[in-house]
Amino acid sequence: MMRLKEIAALLDATLQGDGELEISGLTDVRFASPGDLTFAADKDQLNAAKESDATCVLTALAAKNYPKPALKVKDIKIALTTLYNVMISIAPTVPGGIHSTAVISGSAVIGKNVSIGPYVVIGDNTKIGDSATIDAHCVIGKEVRIGEKNHMFPGVKIYDRSVTGKNVIIHAGSVIGADGFGYIPKDGKIFKVPQLGQVIIGDDVEIGANTCIDKGAFSDTVIGESTKIDNLVQIGHNVRIGRNVLIAAQLGIGGSSSIGDNTMTGGQAGVSDHTHIGDNVKVAAQAGVIRDVKSGATIFGYPARDARETMKKEAVTWWVYRNIEQIRNAIKHSSNKTSTPEEK
Amino acid sequence: MMRLKEIAALLDATLQGDGELEISGLTDVRFASPGDLTFAADKDQLNAAKESDATCVLTALAAKNYPKPALKVKDIKIALTTLYNVMISIAPTVPGGIHSTAVISGSAVIGKNVSIGPYVVIGDNTKIGDSATIDAHCVIGKEVRIGEKNHMFPGVKIYDRSVTGKNVIIHAGSVIGADGFGYIPKDGKIFKVPQLGQVIIGDDVEIGANTCIDKGAFSDTVIGESTKIDNLVQIGHNVRIGRNVLIAAQLGIGGSSSIGDNTMTGGQAGVSDHTHIGDNVKVAAQAGVIRDVKSGATIFGYPARDARETMKKEAVTWWVYRNIEQIRNAIKHSSNKTSTPEEK
Amino acid sequence: MMRLKEIAALLDATLQGDGELEISGLTDVRFASPGDLTFAADKDQLNAAKESDATCVLTALAAKNYPKPALKVKDIKIALTTLYNVMISIAPTVPGGIHSTAVISGSAVIGKNVSIGPYVVIGDNTKIGDSATIDAHCVIGKEVRIGEKNHMFPGVKIYDRSVTGKNVIIHAGSVIGADGFGYIPKDGKIFKVPQLGQVIIGDDVEIGANTCIDKGAFSDTVIGESTKIDNLVQIGHNVRIGRNVLIAAQLGIGGSSSIGDNTMTGGQAGVSDHTHIGDNVKVAAQAGVIRDVKSGATIFGYPARDARETMKKEAVTWWVYRNIEQIRNAIKHSSNKTSTPEEK
Repeated sequence: MMRLKEIAALLDATLQGDGELEISGLTDVRFASPGDLTFAADKDQLNAAKESDATCVLTALAAKNYPKPALKVKDIKIALTTLYNVMISIAPTVPGGIHSTAVISGSAVIGKNVSIGPYVVIGDNTKIGDSATIDAHCVIGKEVRIGEKNHMFPGVKIYDRSVTGKNVIIHAGSVIGADGFGYIPKDGKIFKVPQLGQVIIGDDVEIGANTCIDKGAFSDTVIGESTKIDNLVQIGHNVRIGRNVLIAAQLGIGGSSSIGDNTMTGGQAGVSDHTHIGDNVKVAAQAGVIRDVKSGATIFGYPARDARETMKKEAVTWWVYRNIEQIRNAIKHSSNKTSTPEEK
Repeated sequence: MMRLKEIAALLDATLQGDGELEISGLTDVRFASPGDLTFAADKDQLNAAKESDATCVLTALAAKNYPKPALKVKDIKIALTTLYNVMISIAPTVPGGIHSTAVISGSAVIGKNVSIGPYVVIGDNTKIGDSATIDAHCVIGKEVRIGEKNHMFPGVKIYDRSVTGKNVIIHAGSVIGADGFGYIPKDGKIFKVPQLGQVIIGDDVEIGANTCIDKGAFSDTVIGESTKIDNLVQIGHNVRIGRNVLIAAQLGIGGSSSIGDNTMTGGQAGVSDHTHIGDNVKVAAQAGVIRDVKSGATIFGYPARDARETMKKEAVTWWVYRNIEQIRNAIKHSSNKTSTPEEK
Repeated sequence: MMRLKEIAALLDATLQGDGELEISGLTDVRFASPGDLTFAADKDQLNAAKESDATCVLTALAAKNYPKPALKVKDIKIALTTLYNVMISIAPTVPGGIHSTAVISGSAVIGKNVSIGPYVVIGDNTKIGDSATIDAHCVIGKEVRIGEKNHMFPGVKIYDRSVTGKNVIIHAGSVIGADGFGYIPKDGKIFKVPQLGQVIIGDDVEIGANTCIDKGAFSDTVIGESTKIDNLVQIGHNVRIGRNVLIAAQLGIGGSSSIGDNTMTGGQAGVSDHTHIGDNVKVAAQAGVIRDVKSGATIFGYPARDARETMKKEAVTWWVYRNIEQIRNAIKHSSNKTSTPEEK
C-alpha cells in the first residue's frame, strides 16, 4: 500500500487529486479495480480510465479537469518501472500454500511462505528457499537449491543439482541443467561425454520462456547476478555469463564461452564455443561471434567485427555493385595499356 | 461421413468403384481401417494400399484394374487438403469429457462439449469455449478467454488474461503471454519494466510447438485471423501480426514491431524492434530486417534489402573476388599514370 | 562395479594405490561419496578431491605422493568418456517402478523394469520397451512405440504414432511428432494440409531440450541411428537425417530436406526445404544452405558455399573496402582516358 502523495514524490510527478488515497496495484485499464493505479499512454486509454474503477491514472498526456485523481509524469515507462520495482519490494508475500497434488520428496526441505502449485514434482534432498513461488507443473530434480523469493512459472524443468540465487524468475517451459552437447566420434561411432557439472544462477536473474541452459561438463555453467535472458535462448555447457548482461531472444552460445559484465546481445546472435566476449560489449542482432571480443566493442556481421567498419564496408560493397561497369572498363583499359604496347 | 461419389465431385476426381461407399477417415496406409480413405504418393504406397483395410485409395498415379475403389486426381496434396478441410468442418465433435485429475478453479466457466485431459490446470475466472479440446498437462492461467473449437496440444502454457478466437490450434509446449523483455539499466542495476498487456489471438490461427508469444507491455500483442506460425518462433511484446500471415520456424520479431496481411517470412528470419513490414511481403530465410519494409517487397540479407538487387550484388562481389588481380593491376596502372608524369 | 585395476587397463592409465578397490560411480568432486571415482581438471579440483569422500581421482596432472588412489591419464575428457560408456553399458537397471499418479491407458503395453514418473500420461495402444525410463510429466500419445532403455526426461511430449529405437535419450521439453508446417493459400484463405506421417527415430539417438521434430506429411520424418541433436533444433516434416550426424543447437531444417551420414552442422545453421546435404559435410554455424551440397564439402555463409572460397572472398571484400579510393582513382583515370581523346 502506498499513498498517492508518496507515489508523486517517488516519481517526481504532479498530482491532481487527493494525496491520501491508497494504491495497492498497478494494472491495465481494462482490468482495473478500486485501489489500482492505471496508466494512459494514449487518449483512448485516458478516456477508458475515466470510466474504469481505477483509483488514479498515471499519464504523460495533458489531463486538465480530469474527473479522477491523476499523476502527470514525463515518461510513463520510466515512471511505471520505478513504481513497480518499489511496490514489489514492499509487497507482503501472500503464500499460496502447497497444493495437495504436489509430489514432494520426504527429504526435500521447503522454506517458509512457499507457494507450490498443482502437480509440481520436487526431488530428493532439494531445498526451496523462503517465499518462493513454484507454479503448476514445475519439475525440480534432486539436490537442487532454489533461493529465496524465486518465481518459477508453469512447466519449468530443473535438472539435479542446479542452484539459483535470490529473486530469480524463470518463465514457463525453460529447462535448466540438461546435459551439454558433448560427444567424441571414434571408430565410426559417437560416444557421449559425461556431463558432471552444475548450473549456478546468481541473484536477481530473470530467464524467459522455453530457454535452455545446459549444465557444465567438468566445471559449471554460471549466470551472473542481475543478468536478464530472453526467450528461446541456448546456453551451452561451461558457459560463464557476467553480471547485468542483457541477452535478447534466440541467442545461441557454444560450450566454454564467456560474456563479460554489462554486455548486451541482440536477437538471434550466435557465439562460437570457446569464445570470450568482454565487458560492456554490444553485439548486434544475428551477429556471428567467432573470435574473442575486447571490452567496449560494438560488433556486427559474420564473422562479427567492429560495427562501424562493417557498415562502411557494406556500403562500399554496394557502391562497387552499382559501379561495376566502370570497374570493368578500368580493367579493360589498363589491360589494353599493358597488353597493347602500340597504344603507348 | 461422405460418400465416394461426393468426394469425387468435390475433388473433380475420376472414381473407379462404388460411389455409394462411405468414408469416415483420412489416413496413412499403415494405419488404415475399413471406412478410411488412404493415399498413394508412390508405387509402394499404391501396392500397400491394396493389402490394407482402407476402403479407397486416392492417387495421381495410373491405377488401371486396381482391385479396390480408387480416386484419380491431378495433385494429391491439393486433393487431400481440400478433402481434409471439408471433413473437419462437418465432423461431429466427440467430447472426451473432463478428466478427473484436472484442477479447474470453481470460478472458471467451461463450455459445452469440452474435452479436458489429465492434469490440466485452469485458473480463476477463465472461460473455455464450446467444443474446445485442452490436452493433458496444459496450464491455463486466470481470466483467460479460450474460444470455441480450440485445440491446445499437451503442455501448452497460457498466462493470465490471454485471449484466443475460434478454431485456434496451439501445439505442444508453446507459451502464450509470458512477460516481454523490457528492462531499464540505471545506476549499475537493471530494472524490470512491468508487463501489463495481453496476448490476443484471432480466429483460425495455428501456432506450432515450443513457440513463445509475449504479452504486451502497455498495450497488447495481437495475432491476426488465419495467420499460421511454425515451431520455436519468438514474438516480442506489443507486436502486431496481420491476417493470413505465414511465419516459418524460428522467426524472431522484436518488441513493438508489426507485420502486414498476407506476408510470408522464411525460417530463422529476424525483425528488429519497432520495425514495420507491410502487406504481401516475402522475407527470405535468415533475413535480418532492421528497417521498415513497403508492401509487396521481396527482401533478403542483413540488413534485408530487395532480394533481386541483393542477389545481383552478391554475384558482383563474387565476380570482384575472381577478378581481384585485374583490379589490382588497374589500380597499379592508373597510379603509375598519375604518379609518373613523364609517361604522358 | 569395476575394480581400479580394470579401469586402469581400460584407460591405459597409471594407477597409484590399491587396484582391488571397487568403483560404482563417476561424479564431480563436490558430490563424491565413497565408491565414486572423481576427476581433477585443475589443481583446485585435485586439492578438493583429497578432502572428499571419493575413492579415487582421475587426472592428467602430476599427482606424486597423492594421499588417495589416483589414475593418471593423458586426456581426462577421453578417459572419462571411455569409462562412462563402459559403466553405463554394464550398469544394472534399477527400475523406479510406475508412480501411482501416472495415467496409463488400459490398452498400453509396458515392458519389464520400466520406470514411470509422476503425472506421466500414456495413450491407447502405446508400447513402452523394457528398461525404459519415462520421467515426470512426459505425455506420450496413442499407438506410440518407445524402444528398450529409452530415457525421456521431464515434460517430453510425443504425438501419436511416433517410434523410437533402442537407447534413445530425449531431454526435457522436446516435442516429437507435432504437425508439419504445411498450408495452401487459396482464395484469400489459408488451408491446412493434413499431416499424416510419423516420426521414426533410430537406435542410440540423443535429442536435446526443447527441440521439435515434426511428423511427416504424406511420408515420414526419419532420424538415423546414433545421430545426436542439440537443444532448440527445428526439424520439419519429411526430413531424413542420416546416421552419426551431429546437429548443434538451434539448427532449422525445412520440410522434405535431408542430411547424409556423419555430417556435422554448426549452431543456428539453416537448411531450406527440399534441400539435400551429402555425407561427411561440415556446415558452419549460421550458414544458410539453400542448394544441395555434395558429400565431403565444408560450407559457410548465406547462400552457403565452399568455406575456403567464401573466406577468401570475404577477405577480398575487406581489401576492396580498404582500397576503395584507389579503385575510384583507377575508374576516373580510365574514364578520362576513354572520354578525352585529346589526351592520347
